[in-house]
Amino acid sequence: MQDIFDQLHEECGVFGIYNINHAANLTYLGLHSLQHRGQEGCGIVCNDHGEMSRMKGQGLVTEVFSASQLEKMKGNCAIGHVRYSTTGGNVIENVQPFLFHHHTGEFALAHNGNLVNSNELRLYLENKGSIFQSTSDSEILAHLMKKNADSENRIVNIIDALNMLEGAFAFVILTKDKLYACRDKYGFRPLVIGKKDDGYVVSSETCGLDIVGATYIRDLEPGEVVCFSQDGMKSYQYSQFKHYKMCAMEYIYFSRPDSNLEGLNCHTFRRISGKILAQESPVDADIVIGVPDSSLSAAMGYADESKIPYEMGLIKNKYVGRTFIQPSQELRERGVLMKLSPIQSVVSGKRIVLIDDSLVRGTTSKRIVRMLKEAGAKEVHLRIASPQIISPCFYGVDMSTYDELMSACMSLDEMQKELDVESLKFLSIEGLYKAASRKELCTACFTNVYPTNTYNSMKNTNKKS
Amino acid sequence: MQDIFDQLHEECGVFGIYNINHAANLTYLGLHSLQHRGQEGCGIVCNDHGEMSRMKGQGLVTEVFSASQLEKMKGNCAIGHVRYSTTGGNVIENVQPFLFHHHTGEFALAHNGNLVNSNELRLYLENKGSIFQSTSDSEILAHLMKKNADSENRIVNIIDALNMLEGAFAFVILTKDKLYACRDKYGFRPLVIGKKDDGYVVSSETCGLDIVGATYIRDLEPGEVVCFSQDGMKSYQYSQFKHYKMCAMEYIYFSRPDSNLEGLNCHTFRRISGKILAQESPVDADIVIGVPDSSLSAAMGYADESKIPYEMGLIKNKYVGRTFIQPSQELRERGVLMKLSPIQSVVSGKRIVLIDDSLVRGTTSKRIVRMLKEAGAKEVHLRIASPQIISPCFYGVDMSTYDELMSACMSLDEMQKELDVESLKFLSIEGLYKAASRKELCTACFTNVYPTNTYNSMKNTNKKS
Amino acid sequence: MQDIFDQLHEECGVFGIYNINHAANLTYLGLHSLQHRGQEGCGIVCNDHGEMSRMKGQGLVTEVFSASQLEKMKGNCAIGHVRYSTTGGNVIENVQPFLFHHHTGEFALAHNGNLVNSNELRLYLENKGSIFQSTSDSEILAHLMKKNADSENRIVNIIDALNMLEGAFAFVILTKDKLYACRDKYGFRPLVIGKKDDGYVVSSETCGLDIVGATYIRDLEPGEVVCFSQDGMKSYQYSQFKHYKMCAMEYIYFSRPDSNLEGLNCHTFRRISGKILAQESPVDADIVIGVPDSSLSAAMGYADESKIPYEMGLIKNKYVGRTFIQPSQELRERGVLMKLSPIQSVVSGKRIVLIDDSLVRGTTSKRIVRMLKEAGAKEVHLRIASPQIISPCFYGVDMSTYDELMSACMSLDEMQKELDVESLKFLSIEGLYKAASRKELCTACFTNVYPTNTYNSMKNTNKKS
Amino acid sequence: MQDIFDQLHEECGVFGIYNINHAANLTYLGLHSLQHRGQEGCGIVCNDHGEMSRMKGQGLVTEVFSASQLEKMKGNCAIGHVRYSTTGGNVIENVQPFLFHHHTGEFALAHNGNLVNSNELRLYLENKGSIFQSTSDSEILAHLMKKNADSENRIVNIIDALNMLEGAFAFVILTKDKLYACRDKYGFRPLVIGKKDDGYVVSSETCGLDIVGATYIRDLEPGEVVCFSQDGMKSYQYSQFKHYKMCAMEYIYFSRPDSNLEGLNCHTFRRISGKILAQESPVDADIVIGVPDSSLSAAMGYADESKIPYEMGLIKNKYVGRTFIQPSQELRERGVLMKLSPIQSVVSGKRIVLIDDSLVRGTTSKRIVRMLKEAGAKEVHLRIASPQIISPCFYGVDMSTYDELMSACMSLDEMQKELDVESLKFLSIEGLYKAASRKELCTACFTNVYPTNTYNSMKNTNKKS
Repeated sequence: MQDIFDQLHEECGVFGIYNINHAANLTYLGLHSLQHRGQEGCGIVCNDHGEMSRMKGQGLVTEVFSASQLEKMKGNCAIGHVRYSTTGGNVIENVQPFLFHHHTGEFALAHNGNLVNSNELRLYLENKGSIFQSTSDSEILAHLMKKNADSENRIVNIIDALNMLEGAFAFVILTKDKLYACRDKYGFRPLVIGKKDDGYVVSSETCGLDIVGATYIRDLEPGEVVCFSQDGMKSYQYSQFKHYKMCAMEYIYFSRPDSNLEGLNCHTFRRISGKILAQESPVDADIVIGVPDSSLSAAMGYADESKIPYEMGLIKNKYVGRTFIQPSQELRERGVLMKLSPIQSVVSGKRIVLIDDSLVRGTTSKRIVRMLKEAGAKEVHLRIASPQIISPCFYGVDMSTYDELMSACMSLDEMQKELDVESLKFLSIEGLYKAASRKELCTACFTNVYPTNTYNSMKNTNKKS
Repeated sequence: MQDIFDQLHEECGVFGIYNINHAANLTYLGLHSLQHRGQEGCGIVCNDHGEMSRMKGQGLVTEVFSASQLEKMKGNCAIGHVRYSTTGGNVIENVQPFLFHHHTGEFALAHNGNLVNSNELRLYLENKGSIFQSTSDSEILAHLMKKNADSENRIVNIIDALNMLEGAFAFVILTKDKLYACRDKYGFRPLVIGKKDDGYVVSSETCGLDIVGATYIRDLEPGEVVCFSQDGMKSYQYSQFKHYKMCAMEYIYFSRPDSNLEGLNCHTFRRISGKILAQESPVDADIVIGVPDSSLSAAMGYADESKIPYEMGLIKNKYVGRTFIQPSQELRERGVLMKLSPIQSVVSGKRIVLIDDSLVRGTTSKRIVRMLKEAGAKEVHLRIASPQIISPCFYGVDMSTYDELMSACMSLDEMQKELDVESLKFLSIEGLYKAASRKELCTACFTNVYPTNTYNSMKNTNKKS
Repeated sequence: MQDIFDQLHEECGVFGIYNINHAANLTYLGLHSLQHRGQEGCGIVCNDHGEMSRMKGQGLVTEVFSASQLEKMKGNCAIGHVRYSTTGGNVIENVQPFLFHHHTGEFALAHNGNLVNSNELRLYLENKGSIFQSTSDSEILAHLMKKNADSENRIVNIIDALNMLEGAFAFVILTKDKLYACRDKYGFRPLVIGKKDDGYVVSSETCGLDIVGATYIRDLEPGEVVCFSQDGMKSYQYSQFKHYKMCAMEYIYFSRPDSNLEGLNCHTFRRISGKILAQESPVDADIVIGVPDSSLSAAMGYADESKIPYEMGLIKNKYVGRTFIQPSQELRERGVLMKLSPIQSVVSGKRIVLIDDSLVRGTTSKRIVRMLKEAGAKEVHLRIASPQIISPCFYGVDMSTYDELMSACMSLDEMQKELDVESLKFLSIEGLYKAASRKELCTACFTNVYPTNTYNSMKNTNKKS
Repeated sequence: MQDIFDQLHEECGVFGIYNINHAANLTYLGLHSLQHRGQEGCGIVCNDHGEMSRMKGQGLVTEVFSASQLEKMKGNCAIGHVRYSTTGGNVIENVQPFLFHHHTGEFALAHNGNLVNSNELRLYLENKGSIFQSTSDSEILAHLMKKNADSENRIVNIIDALNMLEGAFAFVILTKDKLYACRDKYGFRPLVIGKKDDGYVVSSETCGLDIVGATYIRDLEPGEVVCFSQDGMKSYQYSQFKHYKMCAMEYIYFSRPDSNLEGLNCHTFRRISGKILAQESPVDADIVIGVPDSSLSAAMGYADESKIPYEMGLIKNKYVGRTFIQPSQELRERGVLMKLSPIQSVVSGKRIVLIDDSLVRGTTSKRIVRMLKEAGAKEVHLRIASPQIISPCFYGVDMSTYDELMSACMSLDEMQKELDVESLKFLSIEGLYKAASRKELCTACFTNVYPTNTYNSMKNTNKKS
């Protein structure tokens, strides 16, 4: 349950439109559907026959864009970005898409993921005279593309550049007459292609296709770059090294329940994972409740399998908004209830199975357990619908040091005591694979086995990547 | 499902603090918990030893108030208001609490409900020289209180004034040294009292007590005015005419699931109403889904009773925000998906029981049914967890003419056809009473039987009350 | 020189349009031309066949109104107000025009001036049941008008009400079909009438007529109320007690140089007063400089008469904007230079005659003298183009206690020393009368002789009026 | 008179602080004093021991910066910029200072002027792999500095880079431990050095030194770069090609009256130019008036010399603010009076000498003449205190095509007719040199003789530079 209090964050979502009317408005809708992937900033670049206009800002999609501004963004090609944070902090300079001016034409790009060799590439580029406008690693691709600029053959430049990148990425690149979509050779981050009218849509998740009414074609392959131009859609496999290592957390927590990732619906995955969790770790209890909203699917699955009634024991306030620090300790404690509250008549006197999707720092779970017990819960059995997170992520998820991970620092017993629960169980790795019906996933955070070389950024595990 | 698109609106929530530190901040928390009762405006008046400060604005609680502004509002007594709309439209002048200047001391008031004799009272007052600063009927009480001002005996003035009011109201009144809470003699609108430290809290719903950590004492009685002063809490029954006619829609839709109204929890009521609905109107189907969020309780009840699996077929976007009109018809249709989307893998090929809490205009239900069928639903059986709404409300709910009510204008068959559902059933009145375990409720909108005299405002059923 | 730093403030300007297209836009222009009379807030009420719309806010005319908002204000009658401050402080409730709702029709009013019997009237009205929405004395007239409401004969009600008011006022009143303009029986505050097309314009100053292209007809007489209706313009002398006591400070400082007040142009008055000052208090010096912008006219007159060259020794920054408190004492001192700076090459080594229009607290003059001396001035001879201010004002000028008036607390010698000038002289009362070519003026602040009864508000000279 | 309506614009002002406490606040003050050089945007970069913070925005200095934001900008070195426009339009990306990230340390720069070989340099740099973040020519210097990066010897890199630039520039460059100030080899744009405490100040004009309390040391020399470091101030003459060609318009119009440029005070220059104009082009008239504020100095000079009385015939509204397009033609005409208005009693029936500092498009002058005649002026003799502008500017002044220059398109007779004046005269070139007491000035716009090679940008005289 990383949905409130100390949230676990995805880093970004990307979206692109090629050759469809109202490209800026469609991108607005697409970004809105990807809002859960990043709430700190967002932007759109729209291409009107080579004339690029950009709008970006800090905040939510509905806060940053207005009808009148979108109307000014003409053209039928566009890319967009929603962003969580990156190295360098939450400043407007780091909000994407990045827009570059060049005598061969303006171009823009947006990135979801995290490069693990960014320091090396940056040094290499600066030593050749490049200057960076942001502290984001996403800017590196642009410089690589132009470094040995052969403007006659842009796809070769892009392929060469992509081959220099290590790590996790889904890129969309907008040029004066083309749209490119690229996915790293491990396929860490999702990226899908859809079709609408005579044009194309790319999106981090299928919910972005649904909202604009595009028909799903397929997911991009790891190591693939797709070019959309007046000649239609053309695919290049830029690397022969190709692994299916999509981030398991996409299924577990990040993606929207209605999104399908590489063929599997997220809600369905979560429901199954709840069932398996019930098989693996049953308990005698009165009701099953999930931490809203992200853990409700798994809770339903657990209830189904265990035959323990599914109940609504916690409700989430739909008007949370931006809150501020209250002036006294008691008021600060009260502030938590602005986000989530127990239904006393449901939980009082009950033995509760509490389902959460994942457990990172544990502070949120601890508060929820206390909230339930104060509302009268007799027992709380915490069941986590994913394995223990024991290692940091270097591929774009905001958990980057060992010591912020509860499972990396404590034994199960210690955790149970710290969380004040009657029992605590996690889904097994095998259960995870079973729920996904596949073993090809990045589970580095559960296993400490990383698919890529890790370079020096790995060594500094306190540095936010 | 009045939660999205064409929402059914409560008119307002009220809150008050007597003699507790950080009164403005507590009121802020209280109003936040009552936000579902009104999102168009809100305000707080705080009393610092007779010096009143006010802050109000249009928008949500988290938008209108800032930490620094609250800090400036000193004092340990306060009242607050969240507002939907009133006669006269959404202008800042109509945002409450109203604050009045008088040589006997400033005073403020806030109101939830609707007076049915406001036109008569207003004319009476204006003919005696009163001038109104707003178009809100809530201002009338203040003028009545001061009309034959006997400043030595304020409670008598208040009681006299309250006896002149007909209709629905819960009032909180803040004077230089007291807090008053009043409820109309039918008890249409809820109002509860809690205790915290040496002071008192009043709130439209118990969730307002929970968030500030107050202990529930009791609901105000119909026809009661309670005065909080340095002598503690003192109750006056201002009218011997006293009926328990709380609005049934408070249980069905308005109040928060975790609130208890006159002893009954709302989520529990809704769950039971879903069970009864399943008994009354069973159907052979594959899954039960509720329209999020307000109909999930009833859907769980229906699933429990019918043994048809409860599923998550629709998800609500938690980042809806303020949206604007899209520039093309297709985009406008798409805009609906910004709020609610189906999970195709759940609903495709299924026979669905769709539970909604109520059906007013029917436009929303129609859209949702279409959405589900486009996502592949084989059958949609719509079950409404409340009776047919056939008459307008004059007591503060925003449905004021016959012709906006689908059930008042069409037969069941016509509705079923219009909504494009395979079957359509409503909860019976008896089912409603059974779920509430009581018959003393205002069910005027279901029965066309009004508890009060109706005056001339009743005749003009097109006038927004 | 009260134009910067510790400014002397007029309280408000009023404006009205009767029967001219684009009434809201014309009022916007009119208020913009009266902006110097009040910068804290402004508002417009527009009448579209009895339907009144209002727009008001805190800040400058160009900040509060937008093109799109003005467009929504339909109708060809309007009134407007720019405001400095009033009792009760700078809160949005006190920003005028006030708008009142009444079954006989909405009406609005705006006021420039200060009533001296407001406390008495307020008590009288409240004892008859009135409640006030603001702390402004301007609201009193509305209540008086409705007190013994004879809706058939509004002019009689207005005349009766006006006769109860004591003090300084220029009122504009907008009803569903008429516009009224009223001036107190002493004529303290200016108010002029103009004609444009088939309609009429009223304005505190003639510059408001000029900007909308209206032709000046005449000033309102003291004790006159003028009614504009479909029958044209009709005048009523509501009081036979009638004195010409316009505030001398209107000529000296408040009004715009291009405005004519009761037949005399302000710049011309100021230039002549400078000449007379040179005759009365000559000095041997190298250059004459005026404190910009308000004292330049008088400085030109002094230079002309004395044959000492007029120079530009101080320049005012035209981009002052809203400034904030700097973090160190030195920076705070520097901040003064953001507003005004000396031209060193002009003042260095010179014996300067420094002309200021008036001297209230003296703090500004002291700073300017120091600034000039730091820039190298050899001598500074301060000449004030008005008499010594020895008494507070109760008619709407923001100088209300004896102890804030330098001339009330110090001898000439002490002031000269305090200000660090080589000599200090004031215009004589006779000089003032001579410059105005009339003796009928309110000079209470120079003479301590007040034209009106003063009631109890006079006794509390620390209360801001 | 380019101060209102169709203003002639300088492009930018720069400011820098080395080693003084409160560097950000001092830069704020400095930029405020340079506000007249650019009102479209502004920014500050502050250096706290190598950690750079930036704040920038569109609008005035007082709008963009707040006290709380400045407080966060720690450090005792800073640079700032006020900006008019540049190629690429008024977008936030083009607001300076530019901040660059590099492994050798962040650095920032700000620029006043215009490079004439920017297209060539940009192509050269892009072909070597550079990508530009803005469309501003000011970014070029940063790329040149890093191109052949020898990080051990930064001053050599800077000197090499500066030698590649052709055109007009004053640059301030902030690195982790140094501040650089550079002026082009013609000295087109002013830049001065001051001393305060143990640190240094650089500013486009001396008024920037005055406001922070710095002591003027000297103007930078053409072709000089000055480095401020812990070793103090060190000067390098980067080019032996060195000419004194400061823009004459700096004296005539741009710079603040209290600024001294290369030893001569601007107000003094203007006053003398007015005297010479009176000698060269006398006329029999009743009064002399200047167009406020920029032409008042010259008008005083003309009045002095001609013995015709100096009068205040036009007043400028000090509350202009942001205005919008009025809804009718008449109202739009009225809108002009929001900025400037005649004093009818001064100008009516008079033969007027109207002094303006310069004449570019002529539209403003035409309006002012009409305004004066409508106010009753009998004759208007227009005297321009600078020579005829017959050629565009390529060095940073916003007049870049021949056909927008009235003097380039019409004969004197045609202009006199078009402007509807009784006579029209300009200051001679000799008069200009005499007023400046020097002949070494850039007078390209008066003479069509350009000091530099002009490259291809010259050929496209319709392109805004």
